[in-house]
Amino acid sequence: MKIRSVLSAAVLAVATAVGSAQALAQETFTLRLAETWGPNFPIFGDTTKRFKETVEKMSDGRIRIRIDSANKHKAPLGVFDMVKAGQYDMGHSASYYWKGKVPETLFFTSMPFGMNAIEQYAWFYYGGGMELMEEVYEPHNLLSFPGGNTGVQMGGWFRKEIKSLDDLKGLKMRIPGFAGEVFAEVGVNPTNIAPGELYTALERNTIDAVEWVGPALDLRLGFQQIADYYYTGWHEPATELQFLVNKKVWEKLPADLQEIMRVAMRSSAYDMLIQSQHANAEAWANIKKDYPNVKIKKFPKEIFQAMYEANKKLLKEAAENSEMAAKIIESQRNYLQKSRAYTDISERAYLNTMAEVE
Amino acid sequence: MKIRSVLSAAVLAVATAVGSAQALAQETFTLRLAETWGPNFPIFGDTTKRFKETVEKMSDGRIRIRIDSANKHKAPLGVFDMVKAGQYDMGHSASYYWKGKVPETLFFTSMPFGMNAIEQYAWFYYGGGMELMEEVYEPHNLLSFPGGNTGVQMGGWFRKEIKSLDDLKGLKMRIPGFAGEVFAEVGVNPTNIAPGELYTALERNTIDAVEWVGPALDLRLGFQQIADYYYTGWHEPATELQFLVNKKVWEKLPADLQEIMRVAMRSSAYDMLIQSQHANAEAWANIKKDYPNVKIKKFPKEIFQAMYEANKKLLKEAAENSEMAAKIIESQRNYLQKSRAYTDISERAYLNTMAEVE
Repeated sequence: MKIRSVLSAAVLAVATAVGSAQALAQETFTLRLAETWGPNFPIFGDTTKRFKETVEKMSDGRIRIRIDSANKHKAPLGVFDMVKAGQYDMGHSASYYWKGKVPETLFFTSMPFGMNAIEQYAWFYYGGGMELMEEVYEPHNLLSFPGGNTGVQMGGWFRKEIKSLDDLKGLKMRIPGFAGEVFAEVGVNPTNIAPGELYTALERNTIDAVEWVGPALDLRLGFQQIADYYYTGWHEPATELQFLVNKKVWEKLPADLQEIMRVAMRSSAYDMLIQSQHANAEAWANIKKDYPNVKIKKFPKEIFQAMYEANKKLLKEAAENSEMAAKIIESQRNYLQKSRAYTDISERAYLNTMAEVE
Repeated sequence: MKIRSVLSAAVLAVATAVGSAQALAQETFTLRLAETWGPNFPIFGDTTKRFKETVEKMSDGRIRIRIDSANKHKAPLGVFDMVKAGQYDMGHSASYYWKGKVPETLFFTSMPFGMNAIEQYAWFYYGGGMELMEEVYEPHNLLSFPGGNTGVQMGGWFRKEIKSLDDLKGLKMRIPGFAGEVFAEVGVNPTNIAPGELYTALERNTIDAVEWVGPALDLRLGFQQIADYYYTGWHEPATELQFLVNKKVWEKLPADLQEIMRVAMRSSAYDMLIQSQHANAEAWANIKKDYPNVKIKKFPKEIFQAMYEANKKLLKEAAENSEMAAKIIESQRNYLQKSRAYTDISERAYLNTMAEVE
């Protein structure tokens, strides 16, 4: 045995041990995330950027997030399928987009006449909501987490004032999803139109009204220039976006990185609610200043009451069609009832008090 | 040179390199945290436990948090001084406790007739609040972060109904701080009494009324057994607790651990708001069921209006005494005005709509 070879062997052996220790300590993961939104979409897209930055900093680069916006993957409503199949490791979207595939996914975004953001987070984290969501997504090899809240969405822009149920009959309105079905029950003709064509459709009376999100996102589409009546909300009181994660990918992550992911998603979701409040307040101040034509309106009570009944009827039908839906609807109804009784004597009472003093 | 010694030297050299790489990768920090609360204090104490668990998991044990409750350090209101002096690395308390030492710390917890929790988080993170807080704490070698929100606190338990300003004259009430000063301006005799003696003081008419927090924490003290009138809140609409960190300790942490700390504090603070909602809703349901004597009351408008004026007067005085206070008061007033205009057309309008339908 020559000195040289002994030495080399020893150094190599140690170096190999070091190499794998370091590899273990520094094992890195690149997670590809597909978001439903286009590039630089405000608030929604800021949420994935914030998530990415937080995860990368906290993990010291052991996780890298690569975000693909809709312009890249070309399938804004294909996020569920792409993450399920492993084409992407994770996604950022909204649960109610998947109701055509899995009807029970409808309930994890926001429901007409449902919980507000704080109540709904409390339902997710303390009232059994996360467990129900897990049950719905588990068969699809997916984990779903709250992905950011818009707060109460506005009821939409109307070119004419709505004074009675009669004024709704035959009204053509862009309003998608379950809320559209509720509106249909009271005579509205709900349609869905691509965002890029909404302004023109409203201007040319192809539609009479349009529901979008709230001041910050609505302002960009310019509805305030051509519609005078901005109605308060009832149909999406706490729209929660969604982080989707492929379950097999999740299970490959060590426990510390799973916790970093979990907390970064949770924190960026909460942050979106706060950013929404800020951006909507700014945008609403601008609308008030620059568009004095815009008037805030609330539907008369007879309309709310009719829609409330229609909503109950549709929920009853959904519960009859699916045991799982029935379980979720009951959980949400019970939680809302208990939680709102407290919200009424705290938050609502306080806001009403403040509206009285000058 | 003998084979053995050459070998040993080589192995040692490599081993040393490995050793320091591992030491660097695994450098651990134990941070001692003093909290103002007693051991196992609900909600507030759950927040520090949640923070500790999150930090330890995310850092894979590179940070350990050692929580000392008030029974251990014996100085619930000494947290500011102990963290400033480095006796503790961090603390969990509330900013307004330090107004005797640094008057401007008053403004970072909650102000009468001020912002609600979502508005106040938006002010902290998007409206300049964090920067103002940094300016106030920096000279004391301290960093302050939001530490968990109670939501709107209840206005307190009264043994007699309050129907007019006259009913407040000479009323003895446990209500501390700035809200106590506001009450004093309208004739109330505010006192502070240790929590353990509050029930007896109220029962024996040593005091006529008591303000504590909200259903979840009030229920434990038993006021519902001896007072029938539970008033809605106005004085602390969004009480935010506080994480305090010694700045020199913070600066010793590498960037990834700083980010882990920052996000764990932020997320546990938000979580406390959600836990408060849940726990208060549960407790309020129990009070309603077991104590049908309890009636929810709102002060008449003349009382709110008088307190609102008194509050404005006290803020004006505070602004005259300190330029920094003036800057904070102006920032909060402007932010509240803009933010509430939007809250009124979104959250408040929605909650009022829901209260109308059946």
